[in-house]
Amino acid sequence: MAKVAVMGCGTVGAGVIQVLMMNSDVIARRVGEPVEVVKALDLREFPGTPIEKILTHDFQDILNDPEISVVVETMGGLKPAYQFTKQLLEAGKSVCTSNKELVAEYGVELLETARAHSANYMFEASCGGGIPIIRTLNESLTAEEIEEVTGILNGTTNYILTNMADEGKDFATALKEAQDMGYAELHPEADVEGWDACRKIAILSSLAYGGHISYKDVMTEGITAIDDADIEYAAKLDCRIRLLATSRREKDGIWALVAPMMIGHENPLTAVDGVMNAVMVKGNAVGTTMYYGSGAGSLPTASAVCGDVIECVRKQDVIRRDYSFEPIGLLSVDEIERPFFVRYRGTETEAIRKYGEISHITRLKKYPDEFGFLTPVMAEKAFRAAAAGDESVIKWIRRGKKEEAE
Amino acid sequence: MAKVAVMGCGTVGAGVIQVLMMNSDVIARRVGEPVEVVKALDLREFPGTPIEKILTHDFQDILNDPEISVVVETMGGLKPAYQFTKQLLEAGKSVCTSNKELVAEYGVELLETARAHSANYMFEASCGGGIPIIRTLNESLTAEEIEEVTGILNGTTNYILTNMADEGKDFATALKEAQDMGYAELHPEADVEGWDACRKIAILSSLAYGGHISYKDVMTEGITAIDDADIEYAAKLDCRIRLLATSRREKDGIWALVAPMMIGHENPLTAVDGVMNAVMVKGNAVGTTMYYGSGAGSLPTASAVCGDVIECVRKQDVIRRDYSFEPIGLLSVDEIERPFFVRYRGTETEAIRKYGEISHITRLKKYPDEFGFLTPVMAEKAFRAAAAGDESVIKWIRRGKKEEAE
Repeated sequence: MAKVAVMGCGTVGAGVIQVLMMNSDVIARRVGEPVEVVKALDLREFPGTPIEKILTHDFQDILNDPEISVVVETMGGLKPAYQFTKQLLEAGKSVCTSNKELVAEYGVELLETARAHSANYMFEASCGGGIPIIRTLNESLTAEEIEEVTGILNGTTNYILTNMADEGKDFATALKEAQDMGYAELHPEADVEGWDACRKIAILSSLAYGGHISYKDVMTEGITAIDDADIEYAAKLDCRIRLLATSRREKDGIWALVAPMMIGHENPLTAVDGVMNAVMVKGNAVGTTMYYGSGAGSLPTASAVCGDVIECVRKQDVIRRDYSFEPIGLLSVDEIERPFFVRYRGTETEAIRKYGEISHITRLKKYPDEFGFLTPVMAEKAFRAAAAGDESVIKWIRRGKKEEAE
Repeated sequence: MAKVAVMGCGTVGAGVIQVLMMNSDVIARRVGEPVEVVKALDLREFPGTPIEKILTHDFQDILNDPEISVVVETMGGLKPAYQFTKQLLEAGKSVCTSNKELVAEYGVELLETARAHSANYMFEASCGGGIPIIRTLNESLTAEEIEEVTGILNGTTNYILTNMADEGKDFATALKEAQDMGYAELHPEADVEGWDACRKIAILSSLAYGGHISYKDVMTEGITAIDDADIEYAAKLDCRIRLLATSRREKDGIWALVAPMMIGHENPLTAVDGVMNAVMVKGNAVGTTMYYGSGAGSLPTASAVCGDVIECVRKQDVIRRDYSFEPIGLLSVDEIERPFFVRYRGTETEAIRKYGEISHITRLKKYPDEFGFLTPVMAEKAFRAAAAGDESVIKWIRRGKKEEAE
């Protein structure tokens, strides 16, 4: 029997315990022996639940148990998750996590620690919930020169944006509903400001391009400024607004960006609704591939953690992967070219004079003092310079290029 | 340096040589050493190509080369691929293949041979071209009780059906074009009769449900009977006809089916056009996941083969996976319930009397002597019994249920 401990019995941690119990037969068959959670660490009590019997409040109980070889870290945050993980790896125990904050901040160091102590640090659940995207990049698309990764990587914001578009809700109401449904946290900043998606695209890009990309270098904008009017304009243009996290290899380097973008139906990510996530990966041999699944929720994310646990239990040795810890500096997005959607309170003549051949001019009855349009394809720097000096610009949103996720 | 041989330098084999050369730097970085093709087996000559220098006509040259530890089998067919593969595995060399015919027919035996000789038999490229679906089932969704696998698994037939729908071509013309484009073979039976998709769903289902499912047990219908009128009716019903390969776990067993089905836009597989493939996998914890990519073509399929080669080179030991060789008998599809689309030359009254509350009654100007309709949800056996005794039935096509691939 393989003995496992779980640290942090919140949504995902409790899900891990549930999945390992619910699917114990099929897991035992696949592993060759039963996998059982023998200790659960949490500060809270869980009276009357399966957790009660295995609960401990003392991390040392797990660290010092020689029978536990794999530990699940679903505490979230950096403290004390970092210290605990570090100590476990140093003790030769493998750690499987859903904690993207920790992976994005200390992943390189923890992977090195794991390697040095013949243990594994696994983080399939840190990106895309139940979508097996980490393993796909690490194990499957290994013959590829990856050219682009673009995804909807945050279920909360996608739920909010879908709800705003489909039900006509405003941002505050849609956020409140997401909180009531358990999709958004009480302090939703990490989601709605794009920080969560930013960490995830930094992790995926590091694996895709073979070096360490710091999430701090990724230009990130959230969705808090998106309002009903933006959504209505998008609908008129037969588009959706999605929080896209994207990175791309250019001739002279890599750039990355997290931002709300207007995308059309030529882009399959348009069809990804609610809390679902999807990731598009483009390689120079395989072309475009796409991966779709539940990006949030207890069981889907727990399933990904359990997949990692099973891999650790099955394999005695360190799992050989290609992690390069060499830092990759990112290109600025200044030179990236695309059309921009602009809401404008000036005249069409003025807009044409400033941005050239604008198109998709759209007027909404509800907003008689403005109109919306798309600029021609232009470099971000040039567009920003023009827009910054233009008092008629109410706001603008990037228009995703077809190639960005086709 | 890892030395590899390629047997069969057709579309995929030549692609493998190309990918390993084109991406040699990134592959060497990921593996930790260069991977080079040192021998290529084919009956033909390849003057003036990179293959020329490494070409051999004698299988023994590969079998007896102690430096070659991994061999790519992209010959296709059973003979001599089976004998060659068997001998290589017995010699302790790992074999990576795109040959679904061989995997479906002798996969169980070859996996056992591999295991007995500490070698690996790898077949990521046998299903779904560049889509990493085999590794996803083997390595990622390991904590799942899989409930359903449904996919568009044959690029040729999907190209033909897409072409018929979008360009109004008839089957013969669309097939001819697919042949001219290199998507269909001169003898297209394996594709258009559904045999190729049948082998693939048998392979995927064996991995998903943990036992051996023989392709011979899978009820299979091809697309040769689909005509312009069917396509037009489908369009009127806001549907597409797709060759779906599907298997599902029921309370008392598993059933599988390959058949053209009418599916609506509630089903994301509707959007999979041309030679693209997609596979939907539903698990009891993760819910619905989907995988999309190029299902055919030289480089995408070669990329999947190369991913297997890289895994074999990276890992010294036998790759531990859960293959159960226990045969799984399939349930008949007799009791499976769904609506059926029927083209009918009788009266509506007659149809209602025979099939109950029919819906979506559709008449096309071009075919004044008939109409189309959907039956209510009914068991296949009951529907077949009614239709067999009904001379007014011109033909019928299964209507995919929403749950079958949502």
